Amino acid sequence: MLRQASRTLSIRASRPGMHEITDQAVQFVNGSGIQEGLLTLFCRHTSASLVIQENAAPAARRDLERYFERVAPENGPYEHDDEGPDDMPAHLRSALTATQLSIPVEDGKLVLGTWQGIFLFEHRRNTPQRRVALHLIGE
Amino acid sequence: MLRQASRTLSIRASRPGMHEITDQAVQFVNGSGIQEGLLTLFCRHTSASLVIQENAAPAARRDLERYFERVAPENGPYEHDDEGPDDMPAHLRSALTATQLSIPVEDGKLVLGTWQGIFLFEHRRNTPQRRVALHLIGE
Amino acid sequence: MLRQASRTLSIRASRPGMHEITDQAVQFVNGSGIQEGLLTLFCRHTSASLVIQENAAPAARRDLERYFERVAPENGPYEHDDEGPDDMPAHLRSALTATQLSIPVEDGKLVLGTWQGIFLFEHRRNTPQRRVALHLIGE
Repeated sequence: MLRQASRTLSIRASRPGMHEITDQAVQFVNGSGIQEGLLTLFCRHTSASLVIQENAAPAARRDLERYFERVAPENGPYEHDDEGPDDMPAHLRSALTATQLSIPVEDGKLVLGTWQGIFLFEHRRNTPQRRVALHLIGE
Repeated sequence: MLRQASRTLSIRASRPGMHEITDQAVQFVNGSGIQEGLLTLFCRHTSASLVIQENAAPAARRDLERYFERVAPENGPYEHDDEGPDDMPAHLRSALTATQLSIPVEDGKLVLGTWQGIFLFEHRRNTPQRRVALHLIGE
Repeated sequence: MLRQASRTLSIRASRPGMHEITDQAVQFVNGSGIQEGLLTLFCRHTSASLVIQENAAPAARRDLERYFERVAPENGPYEHDDEGPDDMPAHLRSALTATQLSIPVEDGKLVLGTWQGIFLFEHRRNTPQRRVALHLIGE
């Protein structure tokens, strides 16, 4: 019998950059008892985002963070700067990555590849509290 | 009892750039009577896309539009230019943003954050009629 | 009566770049007998990704491939290079495109636009075997 479950994660990153939230997603799936289905994560912000990336090599994570600092830099010619120099680049980095991710569940497990981790990508320096909505449908 | 609803939005943007379609999505969810579920928006084009962004500051929207004009410019060294100088950049800007977005529904409402709006991002200058498929599953 | 179906595609690209997998997705939907629903494709790798793009003009595909070679180049100043010069750019190109795509199904067909094709975007030169998880829910 198909059913749904939902939860909201509250996350405060310790610094700007990528923060793994795979464990929280796995715990939510485990707690639901759903064996086959689809998990959706939705970031309720426009200056933080979601990304699935390499979870083994810290150097890969650092390169990713530096790359987005280069392609959407703080010193761009931005019109919108009321909220500080890290605000507009945060919106751009969000638009270039993902606000939402859906991951199938099989045999009670997310079908993540061996090296895939789910990350909240914090783009602001003051690292406000972030909310990520989780939705699961399946049986 | 879980069920589904679907609709296709037809949108003609008045100019290239971001056009908010949050109201149309909210009306579809409200009309369905579904209280808990998952809404998916799917853009049926490769030269327009979807993005969730700041809906309050028009300057942020303009900066986003200008950013994508810079990173995927019209004067790139493109092989594919049969359909005019704005065609290939349109495909690139689509690939860099999203063709599809899924948003959980809780208590009859999309779980959008306070400042999040859903936008159709029109990348062509002739702004053809665009179709966005909506799919909702829930109860 | 809503139900689910799932399958894993195994794909080995003949060369780096975009490889259309629309037919495999259509065959899965057809075989399921589901007429109305939502198909999700999930790429189980961090150095390959998914993209929906123009499926008619090979020049557009080549321009897309060259664009991502330029914006996330092999000769970037990367810290992570244990796995060769094409490894870190592969992660960056994955983060800029999509790991997951969901597409509504109506009347037994994916609601793809006329020119839309689903592509696996292979970012490595040794083109390892890739797995794309398919999940379908509907009735």
